[in-house]
Amino acid sequence: MLVVMTAAATKEEVAAVTERIESLGLKAHPIPGAQRVAIGITGNTGALNPALFENLPGVLEVIPVSHPYKLVSRETKPEDTLVRVGGVPIGAGHFVVIAGPCSVETHEQTAAIAQAVRAAGANVLRGGAFKPRTSPYAFQGLGKRGLEILQEVGRHVGMPVVSEALDEASLELVVEHCDMIQIGARNMQNYSLLKYCGRANKPVLLKRGMAATIEELLMAAEYILSEGNYQVVLCERGIRTFADHTRNTLDLAAVVAVQRLSHLPIIVDPSHGTGKRHKVVPMARAAAAVGADGLMIEVHHEPSRALSDGLQALLPQELAQLIQQLPALLPLTGRHLIRELSATA
Amino acid sequence: MLVVMTAAATKEEVAAVTERIESLGLKAHPIPGAQRVAIGITGNTGALNPALFENLPGVLEVIPVSHPYKLVSRETKPEDTLVRVGGVPIGAGHFVVIAGPCSVETHEQTAAIAQAVRAAGANVLRGGAFKPRTSPYAFQGLGKRGLEILQEVGRHVGMPVVSEALDEASLELVVEHCDMIQIGARNMQNYSLLKYCGRANKPVLLKRGMAATIEELLMAAEYILSEGNYQVVLCERGIRTFADHTRNTLDLAAVVAVQRLSHLPIIVDPSHGTGKRHKVVPMARAAAAVGADGLMIEVHHEPSRALSDGLQALLPQELAQLIQQLPALLPLTGRHLIRELSATA
Amino acid sequence: MLVVMTAAATKEEVAAVTERIESLGLKAHPIPGAQRVAIGITGNTGALNPALFENLPGVLEVIPVSHPYKLVSRETKPEDTLVRVGGVPIGAGHFVVIAGPCSVETHEQTAAIAQAVRAAGANVLRGGAFKPRTSPYAFQGLGKRGLEILQEVGRHVGMPVVSEALDEASLELVVEHCDMIQIGARNMQNYSLLKYCGRANKPVLLKRGMAATIEELLMAAEYILSEGNYQVVLCERGIRTFADHTRNTLDLAAVVAVQRLSHLPIIVDPSHGTGKRHKVVPMARAAAAVGADGLMIEVHHEPSRALSDGLQALLPQELAQLIQQLPALLPLTGRHLIRELSATA
Amino acid sequence: MLVVMTAAATKEEVAAVTERIESLGLKAHPIPGAQRVAIGITGNTGALNPALFENLPGVLEVIPVSHPYKLVSRETKPEDTLVRVGGVPIGAGHFVVIAGPCSVETHEQTAAIAQAVRAAGANVLRGGAFKPRTSPYAFQGLGKRGLEILQEVGRHVGMPVVSEALDEASLELVVEHCDMIQIGARNMQNYSLLKYCGRANKPVLLKRGMAATIEELLMAAEYILSEGNYQVVLCERGIRTFADHTRNTLDLAAVVAVQRLSHLPIIVDPSHGTGKRHKVVPMARAAAAVGADGLMIEVHHEPSRALSDGLQALLPQELAQLIQQLPALLPLTGRHLIRELSATA
Repeated sequence: MLVVMTAAATKEEVAAVTERIESLGLKAHPIPGAQRVAIGITGNTGALNPALFENLPGVLEVIPVSHPYKLVSRETKPEDTLVRVGGVPIGAGHFVVIAGPCSVETHEQTAAIAQAVRAAGANVLRGGAFKPRTSPYAFQGLGKRGLEILQEVGRHVGMPVVSEALDEASLELVVEHCDMIQIGARNMQNYSLLKYCGRANKPVLLKRGMAATIEELLMAAEYILSEGNYQVVLCERGIRTFADHTRNTLDLAAVVAVQRLSHLPIIVDPSHGTGKRHKVVPMARAAAAVGADGLMIEVHHEPSRALSDGLQALLPQELAQLIQQLPALLPLTGRHLIRELSATA
Repeated sequence: MLVVMTAAATKEEVAAVTERIESLGLKAHPIPGAQRVAIGITGNTGALNPALFENLPGVLEVIPVSHPYKLVSRETKPEDTLVRVGGVPIGAGHFVVIAGPCSVETHEQTAAIAQAVRAAGANVLRGGAFKPRTSPYAFQGLGKRGLEILQEVGRHVGMPVVSEALDEASLELVVEHCDMIQIGARNMQNYSLLKYCGRANKPVLLKRGMAATIEELLMAAEYILSEGNYQVVLCERGIRTFADHTRNTLDLAAVVAVQRLSHLPIIVDPSHGTGKRHKVVPMARAAAAVGADGLMIEVHHEPSRALSDGLQALLPQELAQLIQQLPALLPLTGRHLIRELSATA
Repeated sequence: MLVVMTAAATKEEVAAVTERIESLGLKAHPIPGAQRVAIGITGNTGALNPALFENLPGVLEVIPVSHPYKLVSRETKPEDTLVRVGGVPIGAGHFVVIAGPCSVETHEQTAAIAQAVRAAGANVLRGGAFKPRTSPYAFQGLGKRGLEILQEVGRHVGMPVVSEALDEASLELVVEHCDMIQIGARNMQNYSLLKYCGRANKPVLLKRGMAATIEELLMAAEYILSEGNYQVVLCERGIRTFADHTRNTLDLAAVVAVQRLSHLPIIVDPSHGTGKRHKVVPMARAAAAVGADGLMIEVHHEPSRALSDGLQALLPQELAQLIQQLPALLPLTGRHLIRELSATA
Repeated sequence: MLVVMTAAATKEEVAAVTERIESLGLKAHPIPGAQRVAIGITGNTGALNPALFENLPGVLEVIPVSHPYKLVSRETKPEDTLVRVGGVPIGAGHFVVIAGPCSVETHEQTAAIAQAVRAAGANVLRGGAFKPRTSPYAFQGLGKRGLEILQEVGRHVGMPVVSEALDEASLELVVEHCDMIQIGARNMQNYSLLKYCGRANKPVLLKRGMAATIEELLMAAEYILSEGNYQVVLCERGIRTFADHTRNTLDLAAVVAVQRLSHLPIIVDPSHGTGKRHKVVPMARAAAAVGADGLMIEVHHEPSRALSDGLQALLPQELAQLIQQLPALLPLTGRHLIRELSATA
């Protein structure tokens, strides 16, 4: 249920509604909008009587929310959410390019790639320190040392950084060293981890699971928002199908579906979504054309020597060429590259 | 196996190689290229000895073709194939827009939609007369009368027309009345029908089956080429997956995969590929951005009254807006709208 | 819509209802049941008024059918349908074993395999003469000569025979030489071919398409029944999924689903359903345990020399061992092996 | 790599090989077999030289393991693994029936269901206390109190108990109160949780993820074994496909695939694998017929009042009828019901 306040409602009136909600043993989620405040109610096990709230001062209307997700829904918040990662805005028209190596391998490798993607026009630096590898015997990432390298390099080149957390322990380290927490596809329904993200004070990049429907993706995000963290960016990265010409099947229509149902930004990862370098740039262009709010791309300056996923990594110059094509595409969907950062670098 | 002739090879030398091939009980497929002629050999059950051909006059080299498809392969013919439908070129840089109603319903309806899509900038008129409907009790199309209407309307507005054939009988009618034969997803592995197409003197639009791999799509095209008809355009129209937010999952990376492996043009059908009107335009833009050679889009001037698939039909003005966005996109992939037709209309 | 007659209704009363239906331009399908006759009505484009029929003499009730399929529905005919192939009953408790080579290769090969599967306890002989091969260059079957061999061998060993038809021409030959027409997965939605089957006077074995839902399978069968041929056996043979340890994923729950919705028998093909010999016997046992009405299994006496699909063919002794296990399984689902034939051999 | 000792090798010789392995910075996994001891080596990043080990006393041979999984492989350990849960043996011929409610709701409900499934012949009691629910607002289980109820009820009826762990905290509680740890499909690639399981001293029931290949399932198990816990039972519970007549598509051929590749037991969960009560018993029979090592089935005495998944729960009498059918099926695959427990109850 959603309590929508009038445009003229005072802080005190909002507080009074919140108190009424909490007095019923429920949880109140005030959601500031451009024109008005809405207050989401969660924690109820059955339907609530709108009369409980609709006569309180400052209340415009009480809306039963028909989707199983509430806080992530456009019914609840019609305007696009803007997420800020370090100084970088994502969503609400701002198209972000997140790029970097699959894994942080060494300070030198990370710095070289960071400078290259920075020069190419990327806005946020990615790099894995805790790697969810199918085999227990594969390179598992540098762990804490990897995050420290990422942080140092990010500061040096002037880019906020994002890295994946796998569990509570790595989440704490990611929160300490990074500007954004990434939750990978394999953990999209690791609800315990999602709840920890919901209590963290950093924005979250949540990737769609390989077998997840759009509703399941939004419900996973709802776990994070329901704990109080509204700074969530979704990411389409391909689903499992019978098609064998790509590692996964990138489901670009998911971008359109999410944007109708939710106010959260959604970006696309064509690197994992295809698993093949020669398909990354065309599918990245397609993602921009469909209306995504950004891209996340793996880049390596020496792909053949990468410790993980080298076959799908772009060369820095390929990323640069891609980014040069974006200004022709983005206006078609009312989006633009993030210039602020580039301007000051 | 492929016999590649030198650039200077004479017609007589090509004929001599062809004779040698046929004298062995095999089939020769001379494939003229920009620089040279290559001659595909089919019909062999085992490996052939290259020595049989490589010392004949005018032969540059003899290449064993490693894919199970031969004639559709880029190994066999490196340059893009240009297919001509009426006066409209498709492929090799020419980006086609095929549009029209799902079904031909009446002369008035077809004429109204044809004029609208013509004005919007479409190049080829589509319209179903023989409809493969899941239910035997659903509207099955107007049959022969539908083709006659389509032909009349096409001539009147000055657009070549394409319609689907379901079997030998309807194929003969489509060949008689239309400029291009469409083979639908459900018949992609109807090899008997494919062979009939291979003997028809009209270009073929072959749609990918809902569970077909790229290799299977190319092998289906190979059935057509192996019978002598090299004028084939492929079409990605979505695959069956668990994802339930669209009717099918449009696999845009298939465009990239096909273009690496084959010289045939490939277009995208976002209408069937999504099944939802609000997703058609974004996915059409994405198809153009990924590098497709064209679009096939269902349009209806009164979608709510359409006898079939009204939920996915664009309004004519939506098509017009889409086509207006294409000039910004197509240069990114070295393609351009087909102007010839528009210029003379 | 379904007109259900009273148990005491006379032939004349049934005829009068049929005439009324036809006088409205609709098609009547009298369906004799154990207790009563029901008359299915097809051909209507909108809802019919029950009052048109419910006051005619002998009419018990008029039932609107809620599924898009009518004649195949258990609503229309609650009792199991018994299909007869030559002298062999399938369904309604009779569990059939159809076995034989993937392709008819020679008279000797076919005879050797036929005698072996006959001795092992199989009831119907299968063998492909028209093969739908992915590649136009693969062995396409012996055609008419293959059907003649199959017919001769079947007569000699005393087994009815089934073979696949691909189009109208091959269907005529299959009807002439065989006891049952097989429609393969790739042609499940070749509606033109299904209609031809509906007008043939031989029972039909209809295989589920690789991407077909249960509703689509039943609708495909409805095409056959709606033309007047009620002798249809369905076949689950695996669907396309991401799972790569089998060629297809055998969906055994489809047997339960079909049996709830339809009165038609359904058998299972574990040969194509797994594509791997070592999985055929376990999955055949599972099919019997789930309640299938029979099995269709590829057998070859020299699998390594088979011209097609040798990797999935059982040896005759493996088939014999499987059939010996069935009597322990079948009573659990109220089914039994077909003994009549074996007894007289 | 695998070092296989002779049958006559002494403990000291095994210890000497182990020391050599560890002296190289690698991890040694001695795996006792019926005839001989094998020692798995993990932790190497590249290929090892067999000469490092093959001349040590007591070494029979040194085998490079070709699969990416080592410890779970039949190459490493040819004999079936027997897992013991409380007093109940699973695998190596012992067919287990795990049954109980989806969720522990109250002591009374759990006790009523436990007594009923015990009487029906089940061997292990299941019950969820920490529930991974798609919605954050759905019933999440009773937590610690649920485990206490499950433990009390299990002791009272004389059945070992299994419950799902979602993270490190709930894992510790499950280890404290239960006889077996369940890892659900959504966490199959939660590698952090798998490693914790590998260090726990309780057997683990690992469910296949909805989009996991067989290799990924075995690699997930390898994570557990590589940490030292060899008591792992796998569970097929259905995969995500386009098929919509069941909640998931139960992939029974996976049982055959796993048993060829691995020595670990594998059971089947037809409750989640179908999501529909009327399909549970037929698919349970099919699982037994295919050769599974057991079943895991949700049972509720009042399904319409269940707090979760009531639509797929069997009634106790349905479970009893199913178990009565198993003795006819299990000998076909060399398996038998576990009688020890029943005998002493």
